[in-house]
Amino acid sequence: MIRVAIIGASGYTGAESIKILLQHSEAELTYLTALPEECGAVEDIFPQFKGRCPMQIEPLDLGKLSEMANVALCCLPHKVSMGFVPKLLDAGLKVVDFSADYRIKDVGVYEKYYVKHTDTENLKHAAFGLPELFREQIKGVNLVANPGCYPTGASLAIAPLLKEGLIEIDSIIVNAVTGSSGAGKNPSEKFHFPNMNENLFPYGIGTHRHMPEIEQIMSEVAGQNTTVLFQPHVGPFDRGILSTVYCQPKGKIDNEQLQKLYHDFYDDERFVRVCKNAPGVKDVAGTNYCHIFPAVVKGMVVSFSAIDNLVKGASGQAIQNMNIIFGLDETLGLI
Amino acid sequence: MIRVAIIGASGYTGAESIKILLQHSEAELTYLTALPEECGAVEDIFPQFKGRCPMQIEPLDLGKLSEMANVALCCLPHKVSMGFVPKLLDAGLKVVDFSADYRIKDVGVYEKYYVKHTDTENLKHAAFGLPELFREQIKGVNLVANPGCYPTGASLAIAPLLKEGLIEIDSIIVNAVTGSSGAGKNPSEKFHFPNMNENLFPYGIGTHRHMPEIEQIMSEVAGQNTTVLFQPHVGPFDRGILSTVYCQPKGKIDNEQLQKLYHDFYDDERFVRVCKNAPGVKDVAGTNYCHIFPAVVKGMVVSFSAIDNLVKGASGQAIQNMNIIFGLDETLGLI
Amino acid sequence: MIRVAIIGASGYTGAESIKILLQHSEAELTYLTALPEECGAVEDIFPQFKGRCPMQIEPLDLGKLSEMANVALCCLPHKVSMGFVPKLLDAGLKVVDFSADYRIKDVGVYEKYYVKHTDTENLKHAAFGLPELFREQIKGVNLVANPGCYPTGASLAIAPLLKEGLIEIDSIIVNAVTGSSGAGKNPSEKFHFPNMNENLFPYGIGTHRHMPEIEQIMSEVAGQNTTVLFQPHVGPFDRGILSTVYCQPKGKIDNEQLQKLYHDFYDDERFVRVCKNAPGVKDVAGTNYCHIFPAVVKGMVVSFSAIDNLVKGASGQAIQNMNIIFGLDETLGLI
Amino acid sequence: MIRVAIIGASGYTGAESIKILLQHSEAELTYLTALPEECGAVEDIFPQFKGRCPMQIEPLDLGKLSEMANVALCCLPHKVSMGFVPKLLDAGLKVVDFSADYRIKDVGVYEKYYVKHTDTENLKHAAFGLPELFREQIKGVNLVANPGCYPTGASLAIAPLLKEGLIEIDSIIVNAVTGSSGAGKNPSEKFHFPNMNENLFPYGIGTHRHMPEIEQIMSEVAGQNTTVLFQPHVGPFDRGILSTVYCQPKGKIDNEQLQKLYHDFYDDERFVRVCKNAPGVKDVAGTNYCHIFPAVVKGMVVSFSAIDNLVKGASGQAIQNMNIIFGLDETLGLI
Repeated sequence: MIRVAIIGASGYTGAESIKILLQHSEAELTYLTALPEECGAVEDIFPQFKGRCPMQIEPLDLGKLSEMANVALCCLPHKVSMGFVPKLLDAGLKVVDFSADYRIKDVGVYEKYYVKHTDTENLKHAAFGLPELFREQIKGVNLVANPGCYPTGASLAIAPLLKEGLIEIDSIIVNAVTGSSGAGKNPSEKFHFPNMNENLFPYGIGTHRHMPEIEQIMSEVAGQNTTVLFQPHVGPFDRGILSTVYCQPKGKIDNEQLQKLYHDFYDDERFVRVCKNAPGVKDVAGTNYCHIFPAVVKGMVVSFSAIDNLVKGASGQAIQNMNIIFGLDETLGLI
Repeated sequence: MIRVAIIGASGYTGAESIKILLQHSEAELTYLTALPEECGAVEDIFPQFKGRCPMQIEPLDLGKLSEMANVALCCLPHKVSMGFVPKLLDAGLKVVDFSADYRIKDVGVYEKYYVKHTDTENLKHAAFGLPELFREQIKGVNLVANPGCYPTGASLAIAPLLKEGLIEIDSIIVNAVTGSSGAGKNPSEKFHFPNMNENLFPYGIGTHRHMPEIEQIMSEVAGQNTTVLFQPHVGPFDRGILSTVYCQPKGKIDNEQLQKLYHDFYDDERFVRVCKNAPGVKDVAGTNYCHIFPAVVKGMVVSFSAIDNLVKGASGQAIQNMNIIFGLDETLGLI
Repeated sequence: MIRVAIIGASGYTGAESIKILLQHSEAELTYLTALPEECGAVEDIFPQFKGRCPMQIEPLDLGKLSEMANVALCCLPHKVSMGFVPKLLDAGLKVVDFSADYRIKDVGVYEKYYVKHTDTENLKHAAFGLPELFREQIKGVNLVANPGCYPTGASLAIAPLLKEGLIEIDSIIVNAVTGSSGAGKNPSEKFHFPNMNENLFPYGIGTHRHMPEIEQIMSEVAGQNTTVLFQPHVGPFDRGILSTVYCQPKGKIDNEQLQKLYHDFYDDERFVRVCKNAPGVKDVAGTNYCHIFPAVVKGMVVSFSAIDNLVKGASGQAIQNMNIIFGLDETLGLI
Repeated sequence: MIRVAIIGASGYTGAESIKILLQHSEAELTYLTALPEECGAVEDIFPQFKGRCPMQIEPLDLGKLSEMANVALCCLPHKVSMGFVPKLLDAGLKVVDFSADYRIKDVGVYEKYYVKHTDTENLKHAAFGLPELFREQIKGVNLVANPGCYPTGASLAIAPLLKEGLIEIDSIIVNAVTGSSGAGKNPSEKFHFPNMNENLFPYGIGTHRHMPEIEQIMSEVAGQNTTVLFQPHVGPFDRGILSTVYCQPKGKIDNEQLQKLYHDFYDDERFVRVCKNAPGVKDVAGTNYCHIFPAVVKGMVVSFSAIDNLVKGASGQAIQNMNIIFGLDETLGLI
């Protein structure tokens, strides 16, 4: 039985991780931590767990951690995470890190979008945890950088085309709409119900931090430098990201060829389903699945993907990664 | 032309008042004030007014106020309002006050639910601004206490029965559900979109400040001391209050008698409509109307009313009151 | 391993039952049926099951049924169900029936609210499947009438008071708000998104079919004839019922006594949680839990309960009942 | 006083037209028609008009129409409209037609996306009613084809660039998300609340009928044949369209130049506001305004526009057109 700690358990990805792990037959939650002011009984912090999880969320004690757990899901925010991950590794744990801190391989790019990187050593050895694209690199590592929600949905949507070199790599536009849970637990003006309800708006225009992450993944899959125009929006629903990805194919391609290409690429993947129709975010809400539908429109490829930003876009994928690094059936807890 | 100032224009009731006054043929907005940190161009603070209202919201200057306006809609919060209203009156303005500070006639009750009252002199002369029940008292006063949203919906729902002495006055239960705009503009955990969306919950159990206000209105209409059990809830929508009021009739009454009683009582009222079916909050959203449907169920009367909490429950009713104190057609700006 | 058939699998309660059974360690789905025009691959009918459930929904074949399954979850509508349940029982299956057809023990009452009853023989032997109140009667029967969603929430909210004879049995008012999934899968004007969104309205005024069912349960718990005024409403969210139950205690009672009474009554129940604060429907969404908070307000008891109408109010409770009649751990598939 | 008839008044655009005309100082509603089965009192069909509009919706009588009205807002569906418009014109009325029937100038294109055109004569003389782009052509005509909601938002978003010939005319991608009211009043599976709520999905992939309309407008503005990839989506809110338009500028352009270009183009337009930040659909809900924000991202132009699909995207724009053809202040009823 894997013994799992969640570092930063008081936020939405913490709650979602707890929920999944309660269903996991070969992992048990053993230790939950958060900032002192966010500690307390799980069922007081998340009423959904009343009677389901009798644990406490406690301030992090590294000694206790190393006794209690052999893997940590590190749900800390960007910039904070890299201050803790080295300690978690030193304490002998394997780590799946939810932040961006170990995702961007190019330190210069990271530092442009975030801050100075303080743990470049571990960064070098971290695997990028998108199993459907980089599974072999994940197996057996001690540190997995769990991908961002947008990069997951966007990359899966066109990976088969990138892999086969079928598209112009400077033609990619990712238009995405996320649900509001992506904003996290802290109240803000934008996500105040009377503002967010009945609303839909773009944000992060030209500056969203997931842009370089998307480019890194796509470049790696394509085997060459790939640029992406990424534009996120947020809509009045809790969960889900719909990515609509536009790109220019190099040659002529039709819908039948697209379907075949995608099925060949994904049919062995449990969590990616190639669909006959366009997916909606509700189809995948609460699941670790990614539904994809590629189509040819006026000579362009338009590929749609839907994921749950908290599951395949965060906690579900993290546990998928955890299963992989422990050599377990990848789907445990997730079906 | 009436010249209207809005004191505390940066919140939701301020915005709604601006919106209505833009349609008002005999009143013009002349002065908008707010706390210094909430000042700025109206169209920056409320994007809905881009191109529609070129005004600035400024810090309050009493000298300027007395020059610019002859009536103030005072949209300040409870407790704050009574610090300003005397100054507005002294500046020679008529005032419609949105707070609770001039609503509760019994200072002891006010001080139990709020704080020490610091302007009991003006309190004595303030009219309670629920025109359909107290129109004669409103005409010609200088200070109107604009009713709370819940008290408006709840009282209108059973006023005809109270007036005619047809119900047991200790049997009244008001179960109400409001939209989220009632919570105001400040972000909070409860109204953070990922918490409020897909949710519905009760609050203010046994302690809501509108309880004594409802009792005061109903007692006055009934002509005797009336107690009310009031339970508010909040649901995942922007606007509206549905009040479901339960009470025990003294004698036997049937649906036909109820309809006649309500029609006789309300048919001359422009903003109260007695319906043949139960109303929904969407039927009145964005309007100053109250839709009412009374029914007999198992010997009890169940009466439903729907209002828009920001219009008939706040800014619309305030402007209705303003029209009355200036001797104008009561419906100006509101149809 | 229990082999489970779902009769009428193409609706919302069918989907929810499939979802739960996919997690059940001692039951397997073996046979899914629906009307011919609603048959097809599960993952085409419910995209949420793509890659998760490779089964087909087929027209019912009783011969096949008796070979394939030893228990049926019968998700057919009221009136239709009693035409099939006798056949399911004759085929040697145990049955948990979701309709009202076997809930109302008094045939006269049933026939007043529904139609002529055509299977009064099985009606006599059916257990009423609300385990927290009638567990002993459920054990070992072949036919369980799974309760309505409203009756479940309302009855659990005040059962401890009824059981101890602490309330006036003619004083009970149940005000409830349900999410829209309660309306089922067929499009209608009321539940058309542009009508239901941003709306909240009452329905079934004085006529809702759950009223006699609530009275039957409460009467049985109280040990005497109990009348209830039940008023349902529907709000703009998918899942959940918030019941606000008002009643008059016989003597004086305070919040501390209420808490003790409720804790004594429910603390051994896995799926009922007595809370320190009022629950919201989101706290229980997607779970089989009922959260309850009782309070004293102005001498009345106001008790709040929240359930997910599709889980504890339908499919979850059905599987809880299935677990009981097979002598399994009651919580299998539901935690 | 203009006397206005609404043909097909029982749908959403009919209701929105009624609402606007109730505020119009120089137009009065005189005649409302619908299919016989959809006739009745306005306030029964649309409860929002209780006490506000005492009119009846009646079956169309051409004789009565010609006596009662001098202009018709024709809110009939595509294909149906061209059967009635000739009769309305023959009856001596001016007509603003909401359908697509008089929008597409190329009959072949129309017939590819719709059906055989049966009124090509009037088609020739119809003005395309997008005042900000084609005002001069609208003045004085008898028949205006009111634009589609998507074409309005998409075209306004990049018209200044097209007009100045600054973008590659084969590079335009329009990604749009509409609210659910665009689907009209008839219940359907997709727009059933439990399906649409918490959902967002694309539709009309490669086939949406607004694609050729967008191309026609853009081609006319650009003065050359322009192709557009248009992909619509629908989200869980009532009103609004957010269009995110991507295009390749011919040369280098920066944000400052874009702002200047857009301000120069639109600052005299009352209903188009060029913003300093990205707009949300809630900013324009219930108004006839279009908010636009253009930005340069990675060498591409991304321009965002927000409109209310029922107002600037339908009824508001129709009344703006009506004002124009009668030589009135264009903004009457719309501020």
